[in-house]
Amino acid sequence: MTVIPVSASRRYDVLIGRGLMPDLGRRLAALLPGRTAALVTDGNVAPLYLAQAERSLQDAGFRTVSTVLPAGEANKNGQTYLALLEFLAEHQLTRADVLVALGGGVIGDLTGFAAATYLRGVAFVQVPTTLLAAVDASVGGKTAIDLSHGKNLAGAFYQPSLVLCDLDAFDTLPADILSDGCAEVIKYGMLGNPALLSLLETTDFRTAPEQTETVVAQCVAQKRDLVEQDERDTGQRQLLNLGHTLGHGIEKHSHYTISHGKAVAIGMTLITRAAIAFNLCPPPVLPRLIALLQRYGLPTEAPCKAAALYEASLSDKKRSGNTLSLVVPVAWGKSDLHPVSTADLMTWIERSLPS
Amino acid sequence: MTVIPVSASRRYDVLIGRGLMPDLGRRLAALLPGRTAALVTDGNVAPLYLAQAERSLQDAGFRTVSTVLPAGEANKNGQTYLALLEFLAEHQLTRADVLVALGGGVIGDLTGFAAATYLRGVAFVQVPTTLLAAVDASVGGKTAIDLSHGKNLAGAFYQPSLVLCDLDAFDTLPADILSDGCAEVIKYGMLGNPALLSLLETTDFRTAPEQTETVVAQCVAQKRDLVEQDERDTGQRQLLNLGHTLGHGIEKHSHYTISHGKAVAIGMTLITRAAIAFNLCPPPVLPRLIALLQRYGLPTEAPCKAAALYEASLSDKKRSGNTLSLVVPVAWGKSDLHPVSTADLMTWIERSLPS
Repeated sequence: MTVIPVSASRRYDVLIGRGLMPDLGRRLAALLPGRTAALVTDGNVAPLYLAQAERSLQDAGFRTVSTVLPAGEANKNGQTYLALLEFLAEHQLTRADVLVALGGGVIGDLTGFAAATYLRGVAFVQVPTTLLAAVDASVGGKTAIDLSHGKNLAGAFYQPSLVLCDLDAFDTLPADILSDGCAEVIKYGMLGNPALLSLLETTDFRTAPEQTETVVAQCVAQKRDLVEQDERDTGQRQLLNLGHTLGHGIEKHSHYTISHGKAVAIGMTLITRAAIAFNLCPPPVLPRLIALLQRYGLPTEAPCKAAALYEASLSDKKRSGNTLSLVVPVAWGKSDLHPVSTADLMTWIERSLPS
Repeated sequence: MTVIPVSASRRYDVLIGRGLMPDLGRRLAALLPGRTAALVTDGNVAPLYLAQAERSLQDAGFRTVSTVLPAGEANKNGQTYLALLEFLAEHQLTRADVLVALGGGVIGDLTGFAAATYLRGVAFVQVPTTLLAAVDASVGGKTAIDLSHGKNLAGAFYQPSLVLCDLDAFDTLPADILSDGCAEVIKYGMLGNPALLSLLETTDFRTAPEQTETVVAQCVAQKRDLVEQDERDTGQRQLLNLGHTLGHGIEKHSHYTISHGKAVAIGMTLITRAAIAFNLCPPPVLPRLIALLQRYGLPTEAPCKAAALYEASLSDKKRSGNTLSLVVPVAWGKSDLHPVSTADLMTWIERSLPS
């Protein structure tokens, strides 16, 4: 097992390894006096892991209550959030109790936001069951819901008390969902970890289980470093948005039928092409990136035209007045922040598409 | 004008005086680079002050957008909150922009919660137009919405960037609404300010306009001191809940037909009676408190039986596991925190009612 300590506004450990789920209750009881644990999961994850998680918590002395939300990004909305708050109030959760997010990024983001705001803040634990959630949503304290005008437009910075990442859960992931996580893994390589890119090029970690822990731990450590520098996301942490400004636009334009990982894969390809057009990045980076994304089953071409992409990308919440911060690859395994005006964004988008 | 600086997780000034509203734009522009200001108000306040506030902001260089929410505590709910978030997204508010809460406690709590969570946090300003909001909700950073299971059950600690309290606004308040604020003013006296109680007993500040600024400033300074000691409300700040544990129960049981101030007045009377029954408080405090509340047009008797009050009070969010913290008068102008188990709460409630 790898333990990655995070020192943000709250200190907590990210535990990464196999066979950790049965230990959830014991580890949580050691941190938080065991009263009631409210498990939040979705219809995909519940049949696989809910009973195991409940048993582990009950064996460690917790009373448990559980709610199974409908699966999918379309449910990461205000109505699901309010229903979750009412569930917690109905079961009289108090400030001494704890929420457990058992699932992927949608469950983690929703549960985290409910934990941040129910009674103005109760403790919560992330138990990511997807690669994507393990390397991204479950670490760093960004919680959110989508609004009809865009993704993650409401939320809070709120750190979990523990992240328990049982790699065994990835064994049950459909190939397609695993690919989504690979897009975020490749993102970590592109924004600042050429060694990780080499590993991904030489070994397909999906079929080399002994590599999974290394890959996940490298991503989490990279994210931890950025979060510790810039928890509130006003500077270096924004590097984690590589592929996300256009990616969020692509997700939104597709009405979330294109998954987050795939949208980020496309977003990375597009921003790399534009960076090359502006002479900010050497041309060979693009075909090498496309080959790597395709190796992991990811798409690389935009599903819409420039005008639609511009419209959908403008609500990006990194926007401050008329400026937004693009993350731009400048070499193989290195990216920089690049502020652009909303007026220039259209030019960037035009150059990001194949001519 | 009185300026009360507050040093919490954010530093800000509370400005108290007459004729301040026309200065709103200028003062805000000095603090925050003027981009877009989103004004949030309700149907009662809009006809009186919205145009004036918009003009002041526009004259200082802000673009303004405004939304008028339905008035009343029943609207401090999740649906109004989500609609407000969508309004902000629709008008493309960014992190460089600012929300202005123009109204009473409901508007302040809702707008503050939206500011705390829209894009994970944007700046906001409180412009309280009621006495109640001026001395309570607009200072200290507690923002909230009600859930169907109780008041203020979801929210955030989130400090404003400025509180501008124009006492002229109180001149347009119906007597009944002014009384609500008087209940909170008397609360400050009872929890730790016998000098304020003497002033309230000797002068009716409602008909002595030269006293209003003194009274409001004393309440705000008292709250400031508690907030600075204990922003997250885990200790001394809980003194501000004098009359609120039972008061919230009374409000909830009445389906919010009994206003907050009146419920707090009743809650203070009840908890004082119980404190006397438990020999924690000298008996003369009760008739003196009742006389003072009645002088300011406030009710002092519970509208429901003990069992109903117990049920409605149990969802108090100060509850931690099976303990809750009552605020108990121990002398004229002095109260203490008193932890009780939920098992003992029923006995307290029984003794709080006239036998």
